[in-house]
Amino acid sequence: MNADSIRELFEQVCRGKLSPDAAVERLRHLPFEDLGFANVDHHRALRAGMPEVIFGRHGGNILATRASHEQLAAVRKKVPKAEYQELARAIVLRRDRKKYGKGIIAVVSAGTSDIPVAEEAVVTAEMMGNDVEHLYDVGVAGIHRLLANRASLARARVVIVCAGMEGALPSVVGGLVGVPVIAVPTSVGYGAAFQGLAALLGMMNSCASNVSVVNIDNGFGAGYVASLINRL
Amino acid sequence: MNADSIRELFEQVCRGKLSPDAAVERLRHLPFEDLGFANVDHHRALRAGMPEVIFGRHGGNILATRASHEQLAAVRKKVPKAEYQELARAIVLRRDRKKYGKGIIAVVSAGTSDIPVAEEAVVTAEMMGNDVEHLYDVGVAGIHRLLANRASLARARVVIVCAGMEGALPSVVGGLVGVPVIAVPTSVGYGAAFQGLAALLGMMNSCASNVSVVNIDNGFGAGYVASLINRL
Amino acid sequence: MNADSIRELFEQVCRGKLSPDAAVERLRHLPFEDLGFANVDHHRALRAGMPEVIFGRHGGNILATRASHEQLAAVRKKVPKAEYQELARAIVLRRDRKKYGKGIIAVVSAGTSDIPVAEEAVVTAEMMGNDVEHLYDVGVAGIHRLLANRASLARARVVIVCAGMEGALPSVVGGLVGVPVIAVPTSVGYGAAFQGLAALLGMMNSCASNVSVVNIDNGFGAGYVASLINRL
Amino acid sequence: MNADSIRELFEQVCRGKLSPDAAVERLRHLPFEDLGFANVDHHRALRAGMPEVIFGRHGGNILATRASHEQLAAVRKKVPKAEYQELARAIVLRRDRKKYGKGIIAVVSAGTSDIPVAEEAVVTAEMMGNDVEHLYDVGVAGIHRLLANRASLARARVVIVCAGMEGALPSVVGGLVGVPVIAVPTSVGYGAAFQGLAALLGMMNSCASNVSVVNIDNGFGAGYVASLINRL
Amino acid sequence: MNADSIRELFEQVCRGKLSPDAAVERLRHLPFEDLGFANVDHHRALRAGMPEVIFGRHGGNILATRASHEQLAAVRKKVPKAEYQELARAIVLRRDRKKYGKGIIAVVSAGTSDIPVAEEAVVTAEMMGNDVEHLYDVGVAGIHRLLANRASLARARVVIVCAGMEGALPSVVGGLVGVPVIAVPTSVGYGAAFQGLAALLGMMNSCASNVSVVNIDNGFGAGYVASLINRL
Amino acid sequence: MNADSIRELFEQVCRGKLSPDAAVERLRHLPFEDLGFANVDHHRALRAGMPEVIFGRHGGNILATRASHEQLAAVRKKVPKAEYQELARAIVLRRDRKKYGKGIIAVVSAGTSDIPVAEEAVVTAEMMGNDVEHLYDVGVAGIHRLLANRASLARARVVIVCAGMEGALPSVVGGLVGVPVIAVPTSVGYGAAFQGLAALLGMMNSCASNVSVVNIDNGFGAGYVASLINRL
Amino acid sequence: MNADSIRELFEQVCRGKLSPDAAVERLRHLPFEDLGFANVDHHRALRAGMPEVIFGRHGGNILATRASHEQLAAVRKKVPKAEYQELARAIVLRRDRKKYGKGIIAVVSAGTSDIPVAEEAVVTAEMMGNDVEHLYDVGVAGIHRLLANRASLARARVVIVCAGMEGALPSVVGGLVGVPVIAVPTSVGYGAAFQGLAALLGMMNSCASNVSVVNIDNGFGAGYVASLINRL
Amino acid sequence: MNADSIRELFEQVCRGKLSPDAAVERLRHLPFEDLGFANVDHHRALRAGMPEVIFGRHGGNILATRASHEQLAAVRKKVPKAEYQELARAIVLRRDRKKYGKGIIAVVSAGTSDIPVAEEAVVTAEMMGNDVEHLYDVGVAGIHRLLANRASLARARVVIVCAGMEGALPSVVGGLVGVPVIAVPTSVGYGAAFQGLAALLGMMNSCASNVSVVNIDNGFGAGYVASLINRL
Repeated sequence: MNADSIRELFEQVCRGKLSPDAAVERLRHLPFEDLGFANVDHHRALRAGMPEVIFGRHGGNILATRASHEQLAAVRKKVPKAEYQELARAIVLRRDRKKYGKGIIAVVSAGTSDIPVAEEAVVTAEMMGNDVEHLYDVGVAGIHRLLANRASLARARVVIVCAGMEGALPSVVGGLVGVPVIAVPTSVGYGAAFQGLAALLGMMNSCASNVSVVNIDNGFGAGYVASLINRL
Repeated sequence: MNADSIRELFEQVCRGKLSPDAAVERLRHLPFEDLGFANVDHHRALRAGMPEVIFGRHGGNILATRASHEQLAAVRKKVPKAEYQELARAIVLRRDRKKYGKGIIAVVSAGTSDIPVAEEAVVTAEMMGNDVEHLYDVGVAGIHRLLANRASLARARVVIVCAGMEGALPSVVGGLVGVPVIAVPTSVGYGAAFQGLAALLGMMNSCASNVSVVNIDNGFGAGYVASLINRL
Repeated sequence: MNADSIRELFEQVCRGKLSPDAAVERLRHLPFEDLGFANVDHHRALRAGMPEVIFGRHGGNILATRASHEQLAAVRKKVPKAEYQELARAIVLRRDRKKYGKGIIAVVSAGTSDIPVAEEAVVTAEMMGNDVEHLYDVGVAGIHRLLANRASLARARVVIVCAGMEGALPSVVGGLVGVPVIAVPTSVGYGAAFQGLAALLGMMNSCASNVSVVNIDNGFGAGYVASLINRL
Repeated sequence: MNADSIRELFEQVCRGKLSPDAAVERLRHLPFEDLGFANVDHHRALRAGMPEVIFGRHGGNILATRASHEQLAAVRKKVPKAEYQELARAIVLRRDRKKYGKGIIAVVSAGTSDIPVAEEAVVTAEMMGNDVEHLYDVGVAGIHRLLANRASLARARVVIVCAGMEGALPSVVGGLVGVPVIAVPTSVGYGAAFQGLAALLGMMNSCASNVSVVNIDNGFGAGYVASLINRL
Repeated sequence: MNADSIRELFEQVCRGKLSPDAAVERLRHLPFEDLGFANVDHHRALRAGMPEVIFGRHGGNILATRASHEQLAAVRKKVPKAEYQELARAIVLRRDRKKYGKGIIAVVSAGTSDIPVAEEAVVTAEMMGNDVEHLYDVGVAGIHRLLANRASLARARVVIVCAGMEGALPSVVGGLVGVPVIAVPTSVGYGAAFQGLAALLGMMNSCASNVSVVNIDNGFGAGYVASLINRL
Repeated sequence: MNADSIRELFEQVCRGKLSPDAAVERLRHLPFEDLGFANVDHHRALRAGMPEVIFGRHGGNILATRASHEQLAAVRKKVPKAEYQELARAIVLRRDRKKYGKGIIAVVSAGTSDIPVAEEAVVTAEMMGNDVEHLYDVGVAGIHRLLANRASLARARVVIVCAGMEGALPSVVGGLVGVPVIAVPTSVGYGAAFQGLAALLGMMNSCASNVSVVNIDNGFGAGYVASLINRL
Repeated sequence: MNADSIRELFEQVCRGKLSPDAAVERLRHLPFEDLGFANVDHHRALRAGMPEVIFGRHGGNILATRASHEQLAAVRKKVPKAEYQELARAIVLRRDRKKYGKGIIAVVSAGTSDIPVAEEAVVTAEMMGNDVEHLYDVGVAGIHRLLANRASLARARVVIVCAGMEGALPSVVGGLVGVPVIAVPTSVGYGAAFQGLAALLGMMNSCASNVSVVNIDNGFGAGYVASLINRL
Repeated sequence: MNADSIRELFEQVCRGKLSPDAAVERLRHLPFEDLGFANVDHHRALRAGMPEVIFGRHGGNILATRASHEQLAAVRKKVPKAEYQELARAIVLRRDRKKYGKGIIAVVSAGTSDIPVAEEAVVTAEMMGNDVEHLYDVGVAGIHRLLANRASLARARVVIVCAGMEGALPSVVGGLVGVPVIAVPTSVGYGAAFQGLAALLGMMNSCASNVSVVNIDNGFGAGYVASLINRL
């Protein structure tokens, strides 16, 4: 099965011309390396390392992030059970509800505008078998709201923090917990926010040492990394 | 008195070849517009709007920021009473101790490395006749230290916040007080801090609406603006 | 009341499904920290520090900046008295006309294209209880127009200066007045203006020491900071 | 104990005027929040979350990264047992040799020039109680060397990857392992490497989903994050 | 024939108002220097050095890259035999099928999203008389797929590598072959990919010494350079 | 006449609600400083220094650059004689055909895509009373075409050079002539052209000493400066 | 005479091993194209278009900018009459005092730190046979000083304006005069000045249409362009 | 032989503690992948693909670029025959004088300051067995010098072009030849040259289609790529 036919296969699933089950059946015989697909519309590589979850073989979960309603409609013709997570803009087919994560992943976001990215992290982590708690609207300019939820943070085994604008929240959260913090800069903001660059630079320079960073708006990546950590 | 002779006059003072008093005597007859000097070594314009303080006419205070020990030695030969503020790297001659500010200016800094910039703000505000309180080492990764000093913040009529790296502190402080906050990005940090650019962008995008920003490492400017506000 | 219900509440007001008065009634019992909302469409945090003005409790004023005609229509179904400031693109409901500011805030802009940002500053300052004077079309390439209005500047207790392109106006105005100047870079210009970056950098490097800067196109922030200063 | 005295205390240790033990004795009574020190010479915040390791209370390990030979000499006068890790440029005092990590941390680097950063990660992880394996000189242009060491990668519970220039190594390693990868861009390279910016951008855009990134040359941060993960 | 008339001529061909043959007839009498046309819609200069191929005189091939279906329709009215390469978005008229290249040009791409750029390189090289092999979906996060195709790489006399995101593939390929590698950064990615800038910087800093780079998304240029090399 | 009424006046002319003649009549009594208008749609300041040409008082010429067909239609209702320069996208009303320039202004452009900017320079210079010669499609990759037109360059008293992509043409032209060269970077190109930034930087670093530069795509500015020089 | 021997010749003059007269004697027989030398230490091309002035043939003036005292000493051994312009850091040998310029060139600078660049422009213009007036310390924050010297500006046929920091002065001067303005951004400033980038961007976006710009700190280029204009 | 011992071996050669021959003897038994060394002082990877030339096994040539006189002295103690190429700053030991290249490689440079980079390309190409012709001081502002040497260019099978400042030369050369052009941006220039960034961007946007680019100042890489091409 060469590259073109794999791509074709993937496109057939996304356009609803082929059921995921049929695709999975064909894919399960593929060698591991053949599963490096591009994402539905933004070409974000869904790495094949955990295919049960992302593009599930053997009856695993299927997740397509950044999906439109049109893509949903096409998928549903073939897979009526496919669901759409509105805020996360994700098509999901949940077939495996087993817990792989050993603790709770907390997903924290600064402003209401950061919620779509945060929800993408949530759905990714959930589809990969984790218990997720979210804590939204706890931006640093209203620090008391964050502190009021400190107990929730303390329960987490890994924390994902999504923030745009100045990207300051991961540093504050990082100082409050003793576990790894995955920071996600978002493109929220205007002017000197430069589409997330300000938040990205802020997070790279976090004075909290337990913070590492993924790409701007990459909620999927944060959920993925947090899931790997939570499985350890 | 043309531009060249003014510059010469200024240089003579800095090199100790002329006493500030003699310079002031000559300068007091100058029209207002002739007092737009460059700073001692970094050419930061010390605006002439408040000459009693910065380059004092009529027996006012004199302040030269970013001054070296060599410059101090030269000045002291002519003006033995000139003092040196080690942390702020400033030469000061305090002749007017009247209070012009109506309240307290709080100067807050994130890390120990931000202290020289913070001290430049402190000495500027003090020389312009203000009561100043400082609150150092209250970075956002240890938010409790900041909150423990909230009473000190609450007393201030204006707050100056100096921070490098991710520049997150002004947003947190801004959310805690109801007064104007002047943010000073510092060039503290390395790598993706890009000599203060990360902190500058962070502060420009502060989610706290009471924050405005001055140039990187511009403790003088922050002290100056805060003094103007405190006089109102 | 958790984050989701607050956000829901806010959205109901914006979409006209709930009257501001009803929302205010529910909000007045909320603790202070729960009022950190995102803006109508650009997610600019309207900080809760002055809720009488921005999202008014207790019969205060309500202001929604960067609002569209569609949003206006929705709001008016519930709140017929809501008005629209065309140039500032703001929905306002003025219920409190008390003056909180102690002096005049002058809003100065360089070119006609900067007027929307300037008007956003004007309406913010007015809604927060200030007397505002504006002075438009006084760009630095026609310096006499600015100088002809120097008396107007001299009356101000705080000055807001909006300028795009080279962002030079705050420096000139800063040299003419002895009060704080809040500079607002605008995204006006093309080519090497880089959507306001040139103006932002220019203002950060102002040779006038009484200038501090807010984000590109952030008329709201400038009006907010100026209002805080004018209340002192 | 206020900020100034804490800082003074820290400086005394670094200059050898006070033994770490004496400092620790004084520090152990401090509240948690008072331990947010700046680093020896680069002001990198050593967060207080794990004080047993970084600035050890109760007989824990002490680590000062980016330390010079002069600093070493000063420290040794007071603490003869302090050792210097040449490649990592770190002063260490190892008093606690207990293992806190549950698996192996692999530290991978692309070129010989990346070794100092990699070694900083190694020493940090070791001082925090981890077994560390390193794998150097396995840049992507000689992919067989990396693949020949795949067994070593497979043993790791967390992988740290240091690379300058194009920063491609984390993507390749990320595709080979199923565990979290912490990527450290280094400032190695010249011209369009822009002091690590090229590597940083490359790593932020990694097509491997298990990669998160810390600041340029931040070996300490990578070792810290990896240690937290390895303790889970 | 002045500049305006040449341009007019070119536009007539693109809009189908003039057959390429007629245009060629008129162009063949032009001096060499008059053939520096802008491209169909992106103004990329199709250099005149090899006019038989790009804008064929004497019955050579004609190639118009980045062409729309509208342009195709217009061309076909005059030249029914013109074909459209869907993936490469190119209009081609193949009249000369002679081989000018002495070996195989391999075109390698990292992800499915890079394929349009890769196909532009393929069609350019084919129209210039080369045997081309392509190898797609061999991104560095799944290194085994690339290695499994090493034999294919070994056959090539020149290799073109297209990659977006971190742009790491040319370094890996460069290490596997002993022939020149032409790297094409693509604008694939989001966030910190900055429209291909991350990939461009990565490729400029390749640790493989046999790599040189063309502009972002410039598949045409890569095919052109590779063809020149393959003719030697 | 305050700023608002002036702006209103200007808008009425642009929308065809007022004839330029009527506007001119009202404007001729205005003091010099009141004529600092923004441009039709891009807010480029048409400086008032030469009002006979740009916004003509006393029967002078009128020029509105970057004008759309809609604006043209509106203007023509009131001023049937207004003409539209298609390539330059300019509305012109030519009433004064006197020559103010003492020599020829040559306008040179590199590629066909640069022609709109070049034509804007041409029409500006013509409306300001100059003889203009243009020389298009003489990019540096086909240097003979430029050299073949050297006589044309030699006749010019000032030369304007428009180029995008690498922006190399001004250096070559600068080396061929002994008169001032005004370089205009254009936003032509893609990828690493960064909307004209590459050309701008190239021109700023020109190795020809007789080159000065205006903003990206600023054909108007180049024509304006060249006209001032040609009047000397 | 090939490139190497020319370079050798040039170096011999700079190091004093050959008298300028002897060099000139040898150079006068060279074809025009052989005179494209690099500058003394910064490789700024001294274009050969006006060799009588810059590297004088036939007894013309000689100018070497950015020269050190060491270079002066070496030159003086061979050419005792060579003089050093301290502020401009230039070695000059004035043999031709004829006036080639038809009017006055005004050189304006904003702050005292801009003077070296301004003086480089002055000496270049003087060596090229122009009457030069300078006007220093007239930064925009003290606009009255500039206005007080308006008569001086009005006399000029061309104006050079040097400014660092926000680079605002050219716009103000441009609005005051009706002649061409050559703007020179300087690297004066700190922090967000980014070594002259802020001033450069500001000048590129000048709202005065009679401004064109040369490279950062390029006083030579400004003097050169102004001289060409003044000869017309 | 692990990484540390290989690195040690390499350092011994560079410091003259081990003869290249002895090192080669030990290295010849190493597997291919173990030869990915960092360069002498700039860590530029000397890829192992052509070890006979760069770090010669079996009596091949040895080349160490960017070497200091100190390194030379150390090497000469062990290898008296090692020579130093002053302009290229390279240590060379030439033992194999066989020609591997099939044609001439032309190395062209714009200004005298670009010569060190050009010479690095020359020595690399020569050590890899090529006939090299160089053509210096042919910058685009003196286009006749370049054209006068067109015959020399016409003889070349591959052309390397080194240029700083605006980086325009590759486009002009590319238009004159029909063979591949390798462009090398140099860090020559000041101000807006931004250490070679301007030249790099210029070259990436070359309007000549036969140009590909290597890193700033990477003369070695250009020589290497050109050599590979010339062997075909």
